Amino acid sequence: MKAKHARYETRGPVPQDVISAVEFELPPPASGQATVEVLASPINPSDVLTLTGEYGILPPLPTIGGNEGVGRVTAAADDVSGLAVGTLVLLPISCGSWSTHLNLPAKALVPLPPGADPVQLSMLTINPPTAWLMLSEFVDLQPGDWVIQNAANSAVGGYLVQIAAMRGLNTLNVVRREDAIAAVKASGAEHVLVDGDDLPKRVRTIVGEAPVRLAIDCVGGLSTENLARCLSEGGTVVNYGAMSGERCMISPRYFVFRDITLKGFWLSQWFKRTPAAQRMAVFADIAKQVAQGKLRARVQAEYGIDQIKEAIAAAAAGEREGKIVITPTRNS
Amino acid sequence: MKAKHARYETRGPVPQDVISAVEFELPPPASGQATVEVLASPINPSDVLTLTGEYGILPPLPTIGGNEGVGRVTAAADDVSGLAVGTLVLLPISCGSWSTHLNLPAKALVPLPPGADPVQLSMLTINPPTAWLMLSEFVDLQPGDWVIQNAANSAVGGYLVQIAAMRGLNTLNVVRREDAIAAVKASGAEHVLVDGDDLPKRVRTIVGEAPVRLAIDCVGGLSTENLARCLSEGGTVVNYGAMSGERCMISPRYFVFRDITLKGFWLSQWFKRTPAAQRMAVFADIAKQVAQGKLRARVQAEYGIDQIKEAIAAAAAGEREGKIVITPTRNS
Repeated sequence: MKAKHARYETRGPVPQDVISAVEFELPPPASGQATVEVLASPINPSDVLTLTGEYGILPPLPTIGGNEGVGRVTAAADDVSGLAVGTLVLLPISCGSWSTHLNLPAKALVPLPPGADPVQLSMLTINPPTAWLMLSEFVDLQPGDWVIQNAANSAVGGYLVQIAAMRGLNTLNVVRREDAIAAVKASGAEHVLVDGDDLPKRVRTIVGEAPVRLAIDCVGGLSTENLARCLSEGGTVVNYGAMSGERCMISPRYFVFRDITLKGFWLSQWFKRTPAAQRMAVFADIAKQVAQGKLRARVQAEYGIDQIKEAIAAAAAGEREGKIVITPTRNS
Repeated sequence: MKAKHARYETRGPVPQDVISAVEFELPPPASGQATVEVLASPINPSDVLTLTGEYGILPPLPTIGGNEGVGRVTAAADDVSGLAVGTLVLLPISCGSWSTHLNLPAKALVPLPPGADPVQLSMLTINPPTAWLMLSEFVDLQPGDWVIQNAANSAVGGYLVQIAAMRGLNTLNVVRREDAIAAVKASGAEHVLVDGDDLPKRVRTIVGEAPVRLAIDCVGGLSTENLARCLSEGGTVVNYGAMSGERCMISPRYFVFRDITLKGFWLSQWFKRTPAAQRMAVFADIAKQVAQGKLRARVQAEYGIDQIKEAIAAAAAGEREGKIVITPTRNS
């Protein structure tokens, strides 16, 4: 059958310039495979950095974009059992999900509850576990504890607010612009602050004498130091991104005199070092919450596969109001 | 008796402006006290930062400068036993050692082997344990392992080279200027490199495939990142100073994709959290090595107490060739 996917042969500084939608001939599913129609697949910051060549792992070229998504089974090889046509499935990570259709090993497809929102489900394997794990892997937090994060208006930021609330943690949510406050509050955050030199003072008026032991940084630059200054002695800053494009900066005085630690988090590394059973437990918990609508991200816009360049440009732009999602067969 | 010490009543950006030598009347030693003639007391970077107000703990004012040193007992109260006049003693930390004479509790004085160099012994309680502990407290190093440090031309840097060698560790020693190389090599370092963007490449030509898991940073700015880039995946940068006056800067990519950790070390905190017996074991080991001449720092110049302003100015200046030591009764 004729299908389309978003393919690139080079990397470059303007990510939408290197990728385009191309038609290809999809063969019938081979032994053990199922054909899946992709219903939704998001564009994550890591996708943009992969297109520009700035990411930590780069696939050999040429390649097809898209690292997570949700689809519906449309056909299966004769030797595949237990996977009915029509089943809603989670696609495996890094399968080239910006495709209208693709053939995948049937056993790599995780059935999802019917009726749940495929767009929300399509975003469950990367951003929610990032938030989930940053709240679990670095500091032993107890209900009532405070956590501070910047880039609170991002998808990970939104998931972090929701997951923290489920665990009884309090969040301090930092944004870079006044007009982002309303959206972050609307997504459930109680405390939203605009970044600035006096951030620690404003944080203290909220938390009083309570310790703040974990800070989550996706911005870099002086924003990293502003978070560090809000931490109690011995606190940890975990960086997972570079939205400002600047290096993380923290004065030696906070490392030396306040015993601050600065570390990074990369989901790919966690995948590698974590046994499958433990990974599955995290995903199962997250999938349940997403399917029930308790964990969700705001979506700014959906684009069909033919609009891949516009979609990438929108994802790469700053000041978004939500995720950019490829719903491949839209308008095509 | 008449004595002199270096006293200050205010703090300020030009450290030599706030301190001066003043004469005072030293009473006879009170019950339990001994009178000590100070033979030598160094000026450490932390002393300069205390004068400018930038240090992590600041003594109430007015106060007497000097945080470590060596003296000779000249008198003792009648109820003091086992401490003969003439005994060489280590002064307790933060006793105001920039003094010609002072009265101290006899039990706070640690007798030292006669005949050892008092100038070298006077520097043993702050810089050598800093180097000793940074090599012990963060990464479990084994003989043959590599450690990289910047500010290798500093006193701590020199001690670190010597202590690492005693433990069978290999050091990569980074300096900021070509003309510092010879002095660092003369003090026993085999590998001395000038900092720069291509530092990681030059380091790899020395270490080959061997891991570099610990970096010691006393500079900040891009120098911190240059060290981080030399580390193997999962490595740790330990900062203990800010010689560049700049913030520590490291791109998020090294935290996220290379699992680098950035921490700080402060000897004062180690003092607080470490049982006395363990502290004493570290000091005893270091004192033995210093007394035997196996652990030593270069000295640029000695100043009498009347030259305290010139001494502080020299200590605060960059590009020194060794420590500045107060030998209080010199020329006075």
